[in-house]
Amino acid sequence: MTLRGRKKGEAVPQGVVDRLPVYFRYLTELESAGVERISSAQLGEALDFTAAQIRSDLSYFGSFGQQGYGYNVADLLEQVKQILGLKRDYSMVLIGAGNIGKAIGSYEWFREEGFQIKAVFDIDPLLIGNYHGGCVIRPFDELAVYLAENPTDFGIIATPKEAGQGVCDLLVQGGVRSIWNFSPTYLTVPDGVIVEDIHLTDSLLRLAFRLNECYQRTDEE
Amino acid sequence: MTLRGRKKGEAVPQGVVDRLPVYFRYLTELESAGVERISSAQLGEALDFTAAQIRSDLSYFGSFGQQGYGYNVADLLEQVKQILGLKRDYSMVLIGAGNIGKAIGSYEWFREEGFQIKAVFDIDPLLIGNYHGGCVIRPFDELAVYLAENPTDFGIIATPKEAGQGVCDLLVQGGVRSIWNFSPTYLTVPDGVIVEDIHLTDSLLRLAFRLNECYQRTDEE
Repeated sequence: MTLRGRKKGEAVPQGVVDRLPVYFRYLTELESAGVERISSAQLGEALDFTAAQIRSDLSYFGSFGQQGYGYNVADLLEQVKQILGLKRDYSMVLIGAGNIGKAIGSYEWFREEGFQIKAVFDIDPLLIGNYHGGCVIRPFDELAVYLAENPTDFGIIATPKEAGQGVCDLLVQGGVRSIWNFSPTYLTVPDGVIVEDIHLTDSLLRLAFRLNECYQRTDEE
Repeated sequence: MTLRGRKKGEAVPQGVVDRLPVYFRYLTELESAGVERISSAQLGEALDFTAAQIRSDLSYFGSFGQQGYGYNVADLLEQVKQILGLKRDYSMVLIGAGNIGKAIGSYEWFREEGFQIKAVFDIDPLLIGNYHGGCVIRPFDELAVYLAENPTDFGIIATPKEAGQGVCDLLVQGGVRSIWNFSPTYLTVPDGVIVEDIHLTDSLLRLAFRLNECYQRTDEE
């Protein structure tokens, strides 16, 4: 499938990719609330983007909407889902069944949108054999064999920092092209493999920095 | 305290703030490994930034390092900690003791770096009264009174989407100026309040989009 209006193989800019989930989330809310249509100006106001920004973003994927009418919410949501790749199921493996891993595995939304955790791995003998989110927790040293037998779209790394890169390498060797990384380390991957990091510590550090900046300004006033 | 080399009240650009935790993390690793000094060129290579970028970032906070010697790792780490505001303790409240809340509350690193969760709140009668991370889980309707009696730096919102904004408003009314938001919603806050979002669903959607882009390119080749 080639998306209209976009050259073959042309990558969509990161800024646009970052905003797509925001559109998805807001349009889902509008649809649930029974809203039928919305203008780019209204979308812009709600999301704090300019109308021009929104028209420019959506133009990457073809021409939706009509002059003077705006967008049909249900149609636009379907298109955004299509663009985001939400019209199919994805298989995932989760490595690490500690606190973070357990929280991720319990997130109902993923399953509802087609992201299926098919297997969970850990090295802790006390965890292996337990059930988590409907999956039995398997010994980590079975990961390579599992991936050889079960082609997998996503690998979720929820291990301590030290284990992150090794787990990542095994996932990549097993054909996984998409890594969701919760371990607090930067991963090195070959071309063609995508990593999305959730760095909790970095996020908290940014917050601490900004708060300190506020406190300093208050002190100086 | 005013940091050298920076005008009073001048905000540091978001890009610099985003990279500070990366410096912090890498310098911590270097120090643990016993490395004593590093040049901006070496730092740049390890972190995939240019040496000029690194010199420019650090220049926001004064002049560290010496021509021809580079940076003393321990000194630079201390300075980065100072800049990030890691030389003091922070008090936090956690709202929501579900899976995500439990995972956050169990993160040892926060405590070690001075981020102390002082109280946990939930609306679930089955959770109230249990202990989590050394704190008893309190009824959510005690939050306002708690904040009035216990000035608090950070509020962590780990509730479902629907509750996010209401919890945020209560935190702000209670004097909390820094919100760490895990609920999948965008929060509206008054000027002077800082929000840092961890949007798991957005992150996964970005990953799905990029993976689909890869699959499409492969199909077209």
